[in-house]
Order: sequence, then C-alpha cells, then structure tokens
Amino acid sequence: MPADSSRSQQHLKAINRALASGTYTQVRQLINNLPGAEAAHLIESSPPREREILWQLLSKEQETEVLQYLGEEVRVELLRNLSTDELVSLVEELDTDDLADLLQELPDHVTSQVMASLDEQNRERLEHVMSYPVDTAGGLMNTDVITVRPEITFEVVQRYLRLRGDIPRTTDNLAVVNRKNQFIGLLPLTKVLISDPGTTVREAMITDIQSIPATLPAHDVAKIFERHDLVTAPVIDDEGMLVGRITIDDVVDVIMEEADHSLMSMAGLDDDEDTFGSVWQTARRRALWLGINLLTALAASAVIGLFEATLEKVVALAILMPIVASMGGIAGSQTLTLVIRAMALGQIQSNNTRYLLFKELSVGAINGLLWATVIGITAGLWFSDVSIGIVISVAMVINLIMAACAGALLPMIMKKMGIDPALAGSVVLTTITDIVGFMAFLGLATVLYANLLV
Amino acid sequence: MPADSSRSQQHLKAINRALASGTYTQVRQLINNLPGAEAAHLIESSPPREREILWQLLSKEQETEVLQYLGEEVRVELLRNLSTDELVSLVEELDTDDLADLLQELPDHVTSQVMASLDEQNRERLEHVMSYPVDTAGGLMNTDVITVRPEITFEVVQRYLRLRGDIPRTTDNLAVVNRKNQFIGLLPLTKVLISDPGTTVREAMITDIQSIPATLPAHDVAKIFERHDLVTAPVIDDEGMLVGRITIDDVVDVIMEEADHSLMSMAGLDDDEDTFGSVWQTARRRALWLGINLLTALAASAVIGLFEATLEKVVALAILMPIVASMGGIAGSQTLTLVIRAMALGQIQSNNTRYLLFKELSVGAINGLLWATVIGITAGLWFSDVSIGIVISVAMVINLIMAACAGALLPMIMKKMGIDPALAGSVVLTTITDIVGFMAFLGLATVLYANLLV
Repeated sequence: MPADSSRSQQHLKAINRALASGTYTQVRQLINNLPGAEAAHLIESSPPREREILWQLLSKEQETEVLQYLGEEVRVELLRNLSTDELVSLVEELDTDDLADLLQELPDHVTSQVMASLDEQNRERLEHVMSYPVDTAGGLMNTDVITVRPEITFEVVQRYLRLRGDIPRTTDNLAVVNRKNQFIGLLPLTKVLISDPGTTVREAMITDIQSIPATLPAHDVAKIFERHDLVTAPVIDDEGMLVGRITIDDVVDVIMEEADHSLMSMAGLDDDEDTFGSVWQTARRRALWLGINLLTALAASAVIGLFEATLEKVVALAILMPIVASMGGIAGSQTLTLVIRAMALGQIQSNNTRYLLFKELSVGAINGLLWATVIGITAGLWFSDVSIGIVISVAMVINLIMAACAGALLPMIMKKMGIDPALAGSVVLTTITDIVGFMAFLGLATVLYANLLV
Repeated sequence: MPADSSRSQQHLKAINRALASGTYTQVRQLINNLPGAEAAHLIESSPPREREILWQLLSKEQETEVLQYLGEEVRVELLRNLSTDELVSLVEELDTDDLADLLQELPDHVTSQVMASLDEQNRERLEHVMSYPVDTAGGLMNTDVITVRPEITFEVVQRYLRLRGDIPRTTDNLAVVNRKNQFIGLLPLTKVLISDPGTTVREAMITDIQSIPATLPAHDVAKIFERHDLVTAPVIDDEGMLVGRITIDDVVDVIMEEADHSLMSMAGLDDDEDTFGSVWQTARRRALWLGINLLTALAASAVIGLFEATLEKVVALAILMPIVASMGGIAGSQTLTLVIRAMALGQIQSNNTRYLLFKELSVGAINGLLWATVIGITAGLWFSDVSIGIVISVAMVINLIMAACAGALLPMIMKKMGIDPALAGSVVLTTITDIVGFMAFLGLATVLYANLLV
C-alpha cells in the first residue's frame, strides 16, 4: 500500500474540485477520512473563506486531530469563533503537551473551565507541564512515561506490560525509577524482548544516558536529540525526579520552527505568518517593518544630501552611486547569514571569532579588489573619465571590507545585547552599507573633483 | 546523570585551552572520549589549523564515528589528505547508508577498493543503496531491517529475536514479508511484548501503513515522516519488495538541510558552506554571486542614465531616488520569502494562487499608499516642492505593487522553469524593484518637470 504523496495530492485535488462545485457532503466525507496532519495542511493551504467552510465540515473527532497539527496563528483564528463549551469539549481530547500549548493561547476563563473538566490525575499532569515555559524541555514533554523499579525481573516487566495492554506511541524505553520516583536509568524495550526472563531491570538498564532537565531550553533539547540520534528522552526536575519524556516528533517541530525563524525574521516576517491570512491582518503586520526601512532609507538620502553640490556638478555620480551601496549590501548579507546560521548551530565560540573575522575581512578585501577593478574600468570607459573609475574602485573596496566587518560583528554584538540578530541584523547591516557606500563614493568624489574643478 | 549542553560546553573549553597551550596528549584524551557527534561539531567549529590538529589526534575508532557527523564539505577536505589504504580501513566501519553517501564523494579508485574489501552480503547491500540517487528514499535507507513471516507466532518471533541477540538501533517495528520478500505489513515490537505468545504475526500486523517507494524524493519522505509522526518506515522497490528502512535520524538531517537551503541560497551561499573554511576557497565561491549582482546594479545604473538630463536639472531627485528602489526591494523580499517557504511546505496549489496573489497585491497597495503619503509629505517639506512629493508618492505605490507581484509570481514561474527560486529569486526580484523604482520615479519626474520647467 504505497501511500506516497501522490495519493494525498489526489485527495486534495478531489476536495478542491468538490469545494469549488459546492458539493459539501462529498467534501465532508473526504476531509474527515484524511489523516489529521493532512487535513490540517489542507486547511492551512486554503484562502479564508474555504478555510472556514472546511473547518465547519470537520467531525468532532477530526477537529481534535486537526487541531494538533495546525500552526499557532491559524489555530487561534479558528478557535476564536467557538463558544467556551465547544472549546472545552474539543480540547479535552488532546495530549498533555499539546493541550498545555493550546491553553496558553486561549483566554483565561476558557483555561480554567478546561482545567475544571479534567480528572485529578490529568489536571495535575497538565498543571505540571504548564508550570514550565513552552520553549523548555518541561513545556515540550509528555507525561505518558511508563516506569519500572530496578529490582523486578523481565518476566514481571512483561506481565506488567501485558496487563497494561497499551504502550504509548513512540515508546522505545521504559524509565527506571527508585521509590522516591528519582530517575536512575532507561530500559530499552528491545532488551526485554531478547533477554532471559530472569534478568532483572537493574542488570540490563542503561545508566549512561541523556536525561534532560525540565528547564533546559527547547533549542538545547533539539541539539541533544540530533547529536545522539535519540527517539525519546526522559525529563527530570531539579531533584532528579522523573517528570515526563520528550519524543522525537515534538523535537522535529522545534527544529523546523527554529529553521523557519532565521529565514522569516531576516525578511521581517513573523515565524508563524499565515500564508493565506487576511489582507488587513497581513498589511498591519508588515507596515512596521516597511516603516523602519523607510527611516533607514531616509538616513541614506540625508547622507547623499550632504553632497548635493558635488552631484550638481557631476551627474555621473548620481548614476553610479547605487552600485557601491548595493554591492556592500549583498556582500554583507552573505557574511551576516553565515554568522547567524553558525550561531544557531552553536559553532561560534570565543576562540574562533578571531579567525572568522579575519577570514571574512580577507574575503571582503579580495572580492572588493576584484570587482573594484571591473567596475573601475567599466565606469571609466562609460563616462570617459579616469577619475570616476578610481573613485568608484576605492569606494567599492572600502564598502566591501566594511560590509564584511559589519556582517560578522553585528550578530555577535546584538546577541550580547539581547537583540535577535536574525530580525534586526539585516536592517542595521544595509543601513551601514548604504551610508558607508554613499559616504565613501560621494566623499572621495567631492575631494577629487574639488581639486580637479578648481 | 544530567548530561545537558553545559557539560559539553565545558569539554569544549577544556579542549580549546589544551589546544592553545599545545598540550596535545590532553587534547587527544579529551577528544577521543567525546561522543562522535560532539567531536565532529568541535572539528567543524575550528579554524583550519586547529581542525587539522584535532583530526590527527583522533583514534581510529573515533575517526569512523566522527566521519558520520561531519558536514560534506569538511569531510571531503579532511579525507582528501588520506592514502587509499587509510581510507579503506576507515570507511569499512560505517553504516550502509553513510558509506554509500561517502563513497559518492570519493574518487572512483577508492570506491572500487572499498567495494572489493567488503564481504558479499554487504557489497550487495551497498550496491543496492548506491543504485538510488542520494536524495531519494533509496539513498536514505539502511538495509538493517529485521523481517518475519506472517504465519509464525509471537513465541517464535521472540525466540528468533533472542537467538539473534541484537536488534539494530531505532527499531520500533519488524517488517512482515511473504516468501517472495514482498512487503505486506509491520509488526510493532510493543505488540510482541504485550500480546499472548500464541498470537500469529498475521493477526497482529498493521497493514494500513506508509511504505515508501525507493524512488520517492527525500523531500517527500520527510513530509510523510512529519505528517504521520513516524520513527521508521519500510522502503519497497517497484515490485513491492522490501529493500530497506528509513530511520527518523536521517530524516531529521534531510529536514535540517532543506531548511538551511532556503536561508543560505537566498544569500547566494552554498548550503554546505564551511563557516571556518579557508579564505581563498570562500572568496572564489562568493565572487560569482557578487559578479552577478554587479551586473544587475549596472543595469539599474543604465536606467538612471536614461534620465541624466532630468537629474542635471533637479538634483533633489538624485538624493531621493534610492528610497523608492529600496522600499520595493524590502516589500518584495517579504512576499518572496513567504512564497518560497509556502512552496517548500507544499502549501501552494493551483486553487489558492489566485487568492495569494490578490492578498499580496492588496497588501502592497495598502502599505504603498500608507508610506507613499508619509514619504510624499516628508519629501515635499524637505525640498519645499510639492511636485517632488507627488512624484515620489506615486512611484512608491507603483513599485510596492510591482514588488508584491514579482515576489509572488517569480518563485512559481522559476519553479516551472526548473530554476531554484531560493537561489535566483532575490537577484531577479531586486533587479526588477530597482529598475521599476528608478524608472517610475525618474520617469514621472521627467514628465512633470518637463511641463513645469518649459
């Protein structure tokens, strides 16, 4: 049963056809039979009107399924229209970690009603998960971990599991705890399968493993999973008590969100920006970013304004002036992107920043010299003027070295100041490269032509 | 034993201190006791000279471990200096899928020597994996899958597993195959644990699952894993034969590489660009990108050149002209980034492109009008000239709508033409926004001032 993406593509097409022709009974049947993740994807890929229709057509069970897979922004938008009762019955079905995430987005009176509707054990678990920030191990964890004591034999373990009758999804290990519920080791299920039934848990358990403090940031959790190829990991609190476990599927979400973050932030977009959101919402969100950039563009214009007299005399300068600024922006963005990624990967340490800076400055100088020569000759020939060729060459080298310097240092400085370099880095960088570019080019020209023209 | 990232940070610091003071015996001991992934990370975060020293200090076993975790560029660089014999003994220890990846980067004579050194079963497996492109399910898969027949009971399954004595890492299911080795279902290990020993595999196996065709692109494999929260998945060939399995850790690598790809490509960087690579290598790689951007900047200058006469008369135009182009570039990049990400997530379909285009054009128009008003008033006051305020306002609206249009359509058109929009999109976009920006602003000014000045 090769269920590859072509099958789901066909489903989507069928649903879209049915939607377009208004045969909702058919859409209802199709969308409720899709896996939750695919139905969620379909809803996220739909314009507002279709999105609302699809959501209405979901069955109760499918709604709960779909809810877990929707992006935050779309989820909040769809839930906003539900009554509190509907919300309560809907969210009761979710896993502890998903429920905890969701409750944090909902109004307080809904949260307390949901809490009240849970039985004591589940409420305690939920309160536990919610006591940790969303972006920590505690916020990521689930509480469905199966524990065993070290002194029992595999025969007892297997009898216990049979009695239980159900093992939570993605369980590869049992957690071994002592009487105080302190975590002492992991017992891989495969060991239970292949070892002699008389073996005790203590004999077979692994103790040299990665248990994760509940307060560890999600970013570091993801790194531990990546580096050690984990599928699940136990989470402990300050006293070493086992409080839950983290599964790889939640870690994959963290990894994807972090990767998205750099890409989206560098364009001044929200990580969670809704591709098919409404016009007003989108326009409002982006207006600020454009406003900030308008200010920086005005600053660059003010710099140009300083050289009004020179520009009046030599109009060729106006024609060539965007080149130096633009090349600085491009070269600087390369360094900036590289450093931001390296920082996200944890590659930047105090002992290698000097080499990194040396490397980027050298690269800036080499490429500066190369393209300065090309543009110098081009500009000289274009305007039959050697001086303008010299001016643009020198300005280009200066700006490319400056760009490398800013691209490498800005993210590090911003991080120290607690500013997100992915968000603010590119604005500040292009402001610098524009101002330095115009200043160097027009400034040099002013000096040179003042001597020539006088 | 909370082994969080602070422990590894301390290790790294100790190694760096020892490296700096030249006490290599200590470094050797420290680095060989690190988990492979962390040693690899340390090597990747080191400047060229330190990198070479660290690599030399690795023990044979640690080298093999580290090799699997190094990025392609760094790996090839380090392996280049080894003799063929050293290479052969080094790579023999790797998993089939890692070995297959690695061999594709090495010279042919090394590949054939490694092949010759393997036993027949392993050679066949390796040839099988290598017969699929690296970026398909076949290239990602491992061949260490455990198979069982449908007619046997769980008692027999468990006896078989005990006899085998070893279950490969990250095994959550056994694959059920018929006599012809055709895949017919999956048997979760947890079922073997909790069910009655008399149960047959056929009774308990799951048949409604995602088996993955070996030719499926890695991108689609990752989507299937994400949407269905899989840990492993069986891979089948055209005839439905089981050929291997894919594990989540390799899928995580695919996800991370893809996420990196958009970010790095948009800055014209290679996905695998080595943060601490050598100066010459880096300069050579980036030169081309700067050259292309120089050409587009020259094209923009040529457009400005068309309006030389106007610029000579009204120097204020030269001062303001970068603003319109710059705002177009920023707004266009937002749309471009959003659409590229949506395409990567598979959100763009024929039925929603019209809404997307409508939304982005509307957002462009709204923000265009908003900031056009602001800049119009600012410019008018600055130069005490109503006309220049009007000109820059109209040009801004035109350019922001054009930018939205280009940002939304370019990636789709490029994808149809087989061009990578993440790589080429931003260059083409800024060329368009620069040219339209200068053309609209200076063109309008020329028309207006021609009437005013005559």
